[in-house]
Amino acid sequence: MSRTLTVDLADRSYPIHIGAGLLADRSRFAPAIGGRQVMIVTNTTVGPLYLDRLRATLADHEPLTVVLPDGEAYKTLEVLNRIITALLEARVERGGTLVALGGGVIGDLAGFAAAVYQRGVDYIQVPTTLLAQVDSSVGGKTAVNHALGKNMIGAFHQPRAVIADTETLATLPDRELRAGLAEVVKYGLIRDAEFLAWLDANVPRLLARDADALAYAIERSCRNKAGVVGRDEREAGERALLNLGHTFGHAIETGVGYGAWLHGEAVGAGMCLAADLSARLGWLSAEDVERVRRLVAACGLPVTAPGGLTPARMLELMAVDKKASGGRIRLVLLRRLGQAVVTGEYDAALLLATLNECRGAA
Amino acid sequence: MSRTLTVDLADRSYPIHIGAGLLADRSRFAPAIGGRQVMIVTNTTVGPLYLDRLRATLADHEPLTVVLPDGEAYKTLEVLNRIITALLEARVERGGTLVALGGGVIGDLAGFAAAVYQRGVDYIQVPTTLLAQVDSSVGGKTAVNHALGKNMIGAFHQPRAVIADTETLATLPDRELRAGLAEVVKYGLIRDAEFLAWLDANVPRLLARDADALAYAIERSCRNKAGVVGRDEREAGERALLNLGHTFGHAIETGVGYGAWLHGEAVGAGMCLAADLSARLGWLSAEDVERVRRLVAACGLPVTAPGGLTPARMLELMAVDKKASGGRIRLVLLRRLGQAVVTGEYDAALLLATLNECRGAA
Repeated sequence: MSRTLTVDLADRSYPIHIGAGLLADRSRFAPAIGGRQVMIVTNTTVGPLYLDRLRATLADHEPLTVVLPDGEAYKTLEVLNRIITALLEARVERGGTLVALGGGVIGDLAGFAAAVYQRGVDYIQVPTTLLAQVDSSVGGKTAVNHALGKNMIGAFHQPRAVIADTETLATLPDRELRAGLAEVVKYGLIRDAEFLAWLDANVPRLLARDADALAYAIERSCRNKAGVVGRDEREAGERALLNLGHTFGHAIETGVGYGAWLHGEAVGAGMCLAADLSARLGWLSAEDVERVRRLVAACGLPVTAPGGLTPARMLELMAVDKKASGGRIRLVLLRRLGQAVVTGEYDAALLLATLNECRGAA
Repeated sequence: MSRTLTVDLADRSYPIHIGAGLLADRSRFAPAIGGRQVMIVTNTTVGPLYLDRLRATLADHEPLTVVLPDGEAYKTLEVLNRIITALLEARVERGGTLVALGGGVIGDLAGFAAAVYQRGVDYIQVPTTLLAQVDSSVGGKTAVNHALGKNMIGAFHQPRAVIADTETLATLPDRELRAGLAEVVKYGLIRDAEFLAWLDANVPRLLARDADALAYAIERSCRNKAGVVGRDEREAGERALLNLGHTFGHAIETGVGYGAWLHGEAVGAGMCLAADLSARLGWLSAEDVERVRRLVAACGLPVTAPGGLTPARMLELMAVDKKASGGRIRLVLLRRLGQAVVTGEYDAALLLATLNECRGAA
């Protein structure tokens, strides 16, 4: 069984297919491939598991393959250049299609390569992690990191299709499953109180990899994301709400060094910090904050920033994050559970208090 | 006296201002700058000549500056990263504006940096070479080179304004003035027979830097380019005609090593090769080809490929050029003088004959 949603962007609209066994379903790939040439981009972890299956599905195209090292530390311009070199060596032309087989890092790298190779070629997202299936594969944000900040070099470039085979989650390490849940919880917190209540009750099923529960969470997450992206593709307004926890989270990721914390772990902690600050602004109750922390903790995610990062260092790292505007750090905060807002209107002392209080042991 | 044209692209439309002294005209810059932060990108040749003047014009913004080494050899991902680093170190935000002060290389580099920094910020083109004023600063094509091919990594990203101060041509070396004329001649050949006739008569005035003649040639070139770009921004069709001579030219540039031949020199020779092949297809007369060669030679540009590049090597280099499609090298050729077409429908033996015949001494 599979479900199909649509990201509605006029002539750049595309389907999100979600279901078990889709990696082998040629009929989902064919409509998204315009030309003959196909290059699959994957990594040394996912490749051994799923590359053969996908190559068989795309056999008519005799797909080329690039296998990259695994990890956020490789989401760099240098690794991007390796993809470009492979494309040029294989003489892939403007009509070619890239296929991103992997998690968020592979999707960001392959998507950005597709955005800039010969000023733009097609690509398909084939997310194999929960995080990528519920969030990063949808919406066309692509990027690589810079030593001074995460995702600082990138482009908006929509895929031609997102094909999420839920069977690939069977091989996902527990830690990555938990990290993916951070982005699932995010949708509940920012705009879907009903889903939040469902999550309060069903996180144990998700952690136990109950297939029905996972399929439901993925579809509901994608539906939330597709709606937001369809109304605000380039993050002029509403889409910024999807960054709940991310300004704190990016600061943590950069501060501890890319890869030490998974993105979802940093976002989990970041959402708890955002909830704490929201409470200091009088928007959330102490019970609300406790509910957020309990849910994030139930997902097996950290609820505080690492003790090794001082509030001063966190502020410095947050200031370089791209949500800054006019010198003031703009944050996504919670008016209430299920309703996020973007604001730079808060007392800096309250932010400092949050950074001081929501910090683990050094 | 100055003239203003418009590139008509709906919500991304922008003006091209052409005139003497515009570098000092604050009123041309102000409407194109949305935020407070401005970073000027220039090089070690243009900077000492014009940076102070531009900084004074933009003084309200206390502009930051990045000065790069001069030359096509520096149009790389590594140098792009230097611009990104400078932007991050200065904490330039999404509302910031880049200003490209220089020739085609600076425009391509700064424009591409603007396209990808934080997934896209504004930029202004301030072209200081003839080539950039008549061609590369208009139309939003940005890119860097790869060792395996020119402009292989890039984006379409339209500037907010093009501000061409014709007084900057006073300091342009003769060789670069000549190179710029290649792109001027190009417009005549592909779509403006009347302009071609004017050029037959007026190239000596242009070489003598007659201000009226230069202003006329720049405006007419920009008018041609703006019209084409307005109808086909992303080169789905008509815009490809602007690549007359460029597939041959890029092969020459890559073959001799970036910078050994100027882009305009390679395009000049490339247009002569395109004319030769067009005649072999029966589209141009021998007199037409001779007229093209005479005009290119009058501009002080080469009319043949370098002898050191064998036809086999040229073919290899041309095959990697992005105008290839379905394995066949698509070329812009001339149906007649003033009317170009894109085609892959030609006898490969005729292309080989052109490559053999239109080759200088080794």
